[in-house]
Amino acid sequence: MNRSLITPRTLKGFRDYLPEVMIPRERIMGIARDTFRSFGFAPIDTPALELLEVLSGKGSDETDRQLYKFTDNGGREVGLRFDLTVPLARFAAQHIASLSTPFKRYHIAPVWRGENTQAGRYREFVQCDFDTIGTLSVVADIEMVVVIDTLMRAIGFDRFTIRINNRMVLTGLLTHLGLADKSTLVLRSLDKLPKIGQDETIAEMIQVAGIARDQADAVIAMASCTSGDETGSYAETFAKLLDVTGGNEVAKAGIERLAETVDGAIAAGVDPQRLKLDVSIARGLDYYTGVIAETFLDDLPSIGSVCSGGRYDNLAGMFTKQHLPGVGASLGLDRLLAAMQTLCLLPAVATPAPVLIPFFDANRCHDYLRLGTELRRRGVACEMYPEPKKLGQQLKYADEKGFHVALIAGNNEWTEGRVQVKDLRHKTSVDVNYTHDNVAGLVAAIQDVLQHSDQPSLA
Amino acid sequence: MNRSLITPRTLKGFRDYLPEVMIPRERIMGIARDTFRSFGFAPIDTPALELLEVLSGKGSDETDRQLYKFTDNGGREVGLRFDLTVPLARFAAQHIASLSTPFKRYHIAPVWRGENTQAGRYREFVQCDFDTIGTLSVVADIEMVVVIDTLMRAIGFDRFTIRINNRMVLTGLLTHLGLADKSTLVLRSLDKLPKIGQDETIAEMIQVAGIARDQADAVIAMASCTSGDETGSYAETFAKLLDVTGGNEVAKAGIERLAETVDGAIAAGVDPQRLKLDVSIARGLDYYTGVIAETFLDDLPSIGSVCSGGRYDNLAGMFTKQHLPGVGASLGLDRLLAAMQTLCLLPAVATPAPVLIPFFDANRCHDYLRLGTELRRRGVACEMYPEPKKLGQQLKYADEKGFHVALIAGNNEWTEGRVQVKDLRHKTSVDVNYTHDNVAGLVAAIQDVLQHSDQPSLA
Repeated sequence: MNRSLITPRTLKGFRDYLPEVMIPRERIMGIARDTFRSFGFAPIDTPALELLEVLSGKGSDETDRQLYKFTDNGGREVGLRFDLTVPLARFAAQHIASLSTPFKRYHIAPVWRGENTQAGRYREFVQCDFDTIGTLSVVADIEMVVVIDTLMRAIGFDRFTIRINNRMVLTGLLTHLGLADKSTLVLRSLDKLPKIGQDETIAEMIQVAGIARDQADAVIAMASCTSGDETGSYAETFAKLLDVTGGNEVAKAGIERLAETVDGAIAAGVDPQRLKLDVSIARGLDYYTGVIAETFLDDLPSIGSVCSGGRYDNLAGMFTKQHLPGVGASLGLDRLLAAMQTLCLLPAVATPAPVLIPFFDANRCHDYLRLGTELRRRGVACEMYPEPKKLGQQLKYADEKGFHVALIAGNNEWTEGRVQVKDLRHKTSVDVNYTHDNVAGLVAAIQDVLQHSDQPSLA
Repeated sequence: MNRSLITPRTLKGFRDYLPEVMIPRERIMGIARDTFRSFGFAPIDTPALELLEVLSGKGSDETDRQLYKFTDNGGREVGLRFDLTVPLARFAAQHIASLSTPFKRYHIAPVWRGENTQAGRYREFVQCDFDTIGTLSVVADIEMVVVIDTLMRAIGFDRFTIRINNRMVLTGLLTHLGLADKSTLVLRSLDKLPKIGQDETIAEMIQVAGIARDQADAVIAMASCTSGDETGSYAETFAKLLDVTGGNEVAKAGIERLAETVDGAIAAGVDPQRLKLDVSIARGLDYYTGVIAETFLDDLPSIGSVCSGGRYDNLAGMFTKQHLPGVGASLGLDRLLAAMQTLCLLPAVATPAPVLIPFFDANRCHDYLRLGTELRRRGVACEMYPEPKKLGQQLKYADEKGFHVALIAGNNEWTEGRVQVKDLRHKTSVDVNYTHDNVAGLVAAIQDVLQHSDQPSLA
């Protein structure tokens, strides 16, 4: 090689995922897939590259600035997708004739945004979206909440809160207050309530949105109508909301829909303690039109919502005159993993197989190979070390990677028909009878160790 | 909406994956992940975008021409990865200090090539690679073969052949014939043997590579040394190979290594009938240096190898002086799926859930929701139709999507504590006792239908 070496580095704002990070990432993506599928959501995929006119049709300045765009070799203006919603809209408009509605899809895939890389934000991240398209039914709204609850519990969370609102309640109140034309500015201020507090939010509403003090007070009063801390308080809150929104019909419909959503989710098994009405959440200004949900970890609420979504009126208006309402949410994979890291919920292992078979006796290569096959056929993931090095070196490798069990067999053990099952976490070991014809006892001994392991990681 | 509509279309050379295509894709990717993990291969991921100097360092003209490259907003020259090998080389060079070797990784991810789009080739496709880095041991070579065999069988194939060679045998023969300096041209001709036949291959070797007739004959003679059709013929073939290569030391070492690889794979449980020595396969001209494997479907060999790989000497020479040998292979996901389509092995379903719960009685919404939850908690994936439409419409939806079972319960059934389990494939149904407290009988009845279904699709 007479060329000079190229420095191996990732592009600014991008990162590699090493095994110890990728293993829990894949685990969570797998749980998300299984959960979505168990409700009948079907997988789709769309190209990473889309025609620029498809991506920039949405027309937000921020989106356009962050877009990775270029001219391809065929002279076409193209860009990398910045979310999975615009591709879904294009997909639905293009294929709707061949898809039966309701169309339930999930899509787990990377997206790219040339964002400012401060504050741990990356320019490539994975989105995990699920949506039901083509129905206005409250059942789809309820199901969004049930999927979020099922997914969070499947990942292993017990302490989390799903905050629910319906945009119609906000819309109705603003109409009632004569502020329909100022809704964008008012809601932009309201979104800051948890961060800047009541007084500053009111001040900003008066100053920026140009509304009156009593109007601002009414918005805040409504935003303060939260409930769900105690069972049975929903009805009370709904009554209060009806009162604050002064009989506005849109608000009334929104409140009824909210009540149906909560009742349905509870009927479907969601713990009422986990649901909290929060009329202050608006989640963006224009997109959502009905139910809105955000999910917070009780032990780390400051990291923000880890799973958010809602109902929208018209998914694909850019592409088709066909009205396609929908409802869905997105799991914030990176944020959730960051939270799990902070909460020490991630095991530090770099191997997806819990069992190492050291290659201990150079003459027994075929026996080790065969042992590996026998274990895998019984569902035990295992790795055979490829070289007959000293046992100490192989056990050091096992420790570095985080294996749970090592199966030690030298010539004596092979001759005598036994193997030593070494518990690498608890530094104990047992001798187990084993021949190629009699594997059951060995499998049982391995499973015994793995069940008592602090960090289960069976493949 | 006063803007004009944008035509919803994918970029030339790209495609959407609809559910009926994506469901088997995800199934195979899941089986690949599980298989790789069961051998201790760990997942990694790398950015889709890399610095251009990283991607173009490899320097092949064809690669450069196909590269999607552009200047990002920060003025950096960047490109979309065109394979997973260059990113692995960059990754290994960058992180080797923190990775223990042997480093076993798998990577399932999309790559992009601006190829000519004729002949069903696409510009975005998924690669499924697994590699073991940092060991010269034959155990890693053997394992590559065993992983391919395990993966193919896990996908459901019974009739396939893994063709094995070792580049050292070719190298040794060419050296023995005094053709070491012409190896590139000779091997390029040899690669065409299955397509253009013996006579034309010989003619091309003489004409293009400029070698003598007897040299071409010797190359062809060696390439014809295949075996594996009958058990026990390996030893014979190895003897013949030793003879043809005239005692060349490199060839001899290659033949010994080939014998060890085959013996080891058989010891690890690979059916000898599935292995075939094929000294003619060279797989590219420079990259591979040791074992080479290709996998053909016995019922559709013409589609080409669906899983190929081999051993290479120096993965990351572009990036580091550290010598990183490795061995690995790649599942050709798209080619395999095309073959399965041709062989009618893909079920035509657009839902990952086998059970539909029609929403049949508008007053029983909560009962249907609860039924869905009860089934999912017992591992039965099911979808509740979101609107209380006419049963006929809902069953039409079930047929279109390919559901296997519909659970019919109107007010009578709910009142009487039963549900009708409808087998949608065989057009039969049974009444089953069911209440929210007694779900076991219903689950058993559903599983009974699914077990007798032609196309099992339990999530």
